[in-house]
Amino acid sequence: MRIILAPDSYKGSFSSPEVAAAMARGLHRVLPAAELIELPLADGGEGTLEAVLMACGGRRLAIEAMTVAGQRCPVDIGLVREADGVERVVIESALLIGLHLAPHLAVSERSTVGLGDLIAACVARGWRRFAIGLGGSGTNDGGAGLLQGLGARLLDRAGAEVLVQPARLNQIASVDLARARTCLAEVDMQILCDVINPLCGPNGATATFGPQKGVQAAEVAPLDAAIARFAALCEGDDPAPLAQTPGAGAAGGAGYALQLLGGYCTPGGKALLQLADFDALVAGADWVLSGEGRSDRQTLQGKLPAAVAEAAARHGVATTLLSGGIERAAREPLGEIFQGAFSIADGPLSLEEMQRDGLGLIEEAAAELARLRYRI
Amino acid sequence: MRIILAPDSYKGSFSSPEVAAAMARGLHRVLPAAELIELPLADGGEGTLEAVLMACGGRRLAIEAMTVAGQRCPVDIGLVREADGVERVVIESALLIGLHLAPHLAVSERSTVGLGDLIAACVARGWRRFAIGLGGSGTNDGGAGLLQGLGARLLDRAGAEVLVQPARLNQIASVDLARARTCLAEVDMQILCDVINPLCGPNGATATFGPQKGVQAAEVAPLDAAIARFAALCEGDDPAPLAQTPGAGAAGGAGYALQLLGGYCTPGGKALLQLADFDALVAGADWVLSGEGRSDRQTLQGKLPAAVAEAAARHGVATTLLSGGIERAAREPLGEIFQGAFSIADGPLSLEEMQRDGLGLIEEAAAELARLRYRI
Repeated sequence: MRIILAPDSYKGSFSSPEVAAAMARGLHRVLPAAELIELPLADGGEGTLEAVLMACGGRRLAIEAMTVAGQRCPVDIGLVREADGVERVVIESALLIGLHLAPHLAVSERSTVGLGDLIAACVARGWRRFAIGLGGSGTNDGGAGLLQGLGARLLDRAGAEVLVQPARLNQIASVDLARARTCLAEVDMQILCDVINPLCGPNGATATFGPQKGVQAAEVAPLDAAIARFAALCEGDDPAPLAQTPGAGAAGGAGYALQLLGGYCTPGGKALLQLADFDALVAGADWVLSGEGRSDRQTLQGKLPAAVAEAAARHGVATTLLSGGIERAAREPLGEIFQGAFSIADGPLSLEEMQRDGLGLIEEAAAELARLRYRI
Repeated sequence: MRIILAPDSYKGSFSSPEVAAAMARGLHRVLPAAELIELPLADGGEGTLEAVLMACGGRRLAIEAMTVAGQRCPVDIGLVREADGVERVVIESALLIGLHLAPHLAVSERSTVGLGDLIAACVARGWRRFAIGLGGSGTNDGGAGLLQGLGARLLDRAGAEVLVQPARLNQIASVDLARARTCLAEVDMQILCDVINPLCGPNGATATFGPQKGVQAAEVAPLDAAIARFAALCEGDDPAPLAQTPGAGAAGGAGYALQLLGGYCTPGGKALLQLADFDALVAGADWVLSGEGRSDRQTLQGKLPAAVAEAAARHGVATTLLSGGIERAAREPLGEIFQGAFSIADGPLSLEEMQRDGLGLIEEAAAELARLRYRI
């Protein structure tokens, strides 16, 4: 009997490898003979690299790159061998441009240039397949830095290179993407992102995610306008057509920059399921256990556990949800796709108490679910 | 498919009929075709009469009696017809001598005489079978009041009747039980109590339950001694042999008084299962759902859900536990007798939050359990 443990992280509390391992400990107690496959997942944000390497195998490599704080340091990337034997580079952007990396810098001074550099360095080493996780970024530069890092020339009126930060976007008078396009010409650039926001406007990157990155209310409109102007320069059209694409607003516009150069968005969970060859694992399995920090109506809109359940259902395998919390109002729709949705709470507990012993709670709850499902 | 919903109350929060009804609502959503049998239970304490009448049918009757507060008022009793057609009187002592009924009276002034009166009145009406729930009392009079109510003569040195309260126990110089014995001579007196404490000593009624009824620390030893002295008078032997019997310490000695007159203790849950003819209901059932406010190691020591699981197991039917909380350390042993033990909590919640919408949480959790067990 094969059971697959395919949780997301419990964000802010436990990584998905920790969650999957706790689930496995609980199930093993009740089902000692079962084949338990730990398949920790991620959505493209923090923990993505760790989860990919756990779930897919592959190797880890450190490459020097510049973080959003301006420091050059070794940054881990992953290399996952695909079915045809070719390796795909997995980059977790949060390791370079994560919100926690430059708390001292105003968002107007944060650039994605280091991410562009890193991708260019990987291309230079000969890799042609990428999966870039964009979640958890602290940047909002419209992707201008990333384009620059990949070789684009961003020039002011005098023809001098502008070192891009959001504060300087309006100094750019012309954009030459030729070198960046050449860099990624033969590249399969998969963008892992769950965000479907466009680059600009009321649902754009700045209006939606800017404030949580530190963009002040009064700065939202001018910054949004500066990014729209920059996109028009990139595409030679105003408004810029690609700026409207869903996902262009990911990572403050990094999604736009990568799409501009031929990248395509895939929901993070779905991409990881592909990378891990979930279809092959789940075929013939008996049960899938997934979970996340909190499950609510958003879970149904393509978040990782829903992607897991959908993929498992295609093979006739049921998925049960074990999360930190379950939103009451979402129970009915969750019931449509999950064979039961459970919280790990074992009584009245504060969030802090749940976090303190959360892995123990996951382990115990998984054991109880197995007792009930297998009638032990 | 028949499913039996046989919870105890969630003490201090929800009655067992409320809990069973909430479980039924949840299961019905997921298993609309199942036959759901609501069998709310109780352990002999508060809510016992309500649960018995819900679970066993029978009729309700009000009989005038005197409460521990000294007021004469109608008190409900139940009459449950047994298999041979004879009715058994069900009395919930807490309705007469409950802790909440005389908060203004010192425990030294509280008497169980009204309970004795009530039983005597029922015998006078011709009933000969009783089930007396002793839980939840606020009295600690060694059962002297109860004996007096049943006709015993408790006399001082001058041969005058002592109106018994704990404060006056030491005035008693002789005890004549003849009329009380005659009163209960042909009576089958089942005592519903989960307490196994003896009447006196370090594990006796006063030392164990006195403080929560208001006995001050300095009063414990003298009151315990007065009760031991009274028991020696009753039995003509010192120490009094029956005072050592498990259950003699129930309801501050009411258990002793009833045992002295031929009563016998049965754990409340077990007795209710018998009254409700649980064996007949559970034979051929598919699943039993039980629960209580909090499940811990005590649950395994004969508390109601354990009695339910044990009885169901004799018919090869599994019982799942759905409680307010599950004690971590009890999970392994609970797993030996329950097919899964679950909390109703759906995330981080305070006790107050859980109580505010507890019935909703029970309903939702029951639905999820059914989804998992029946793989829906």
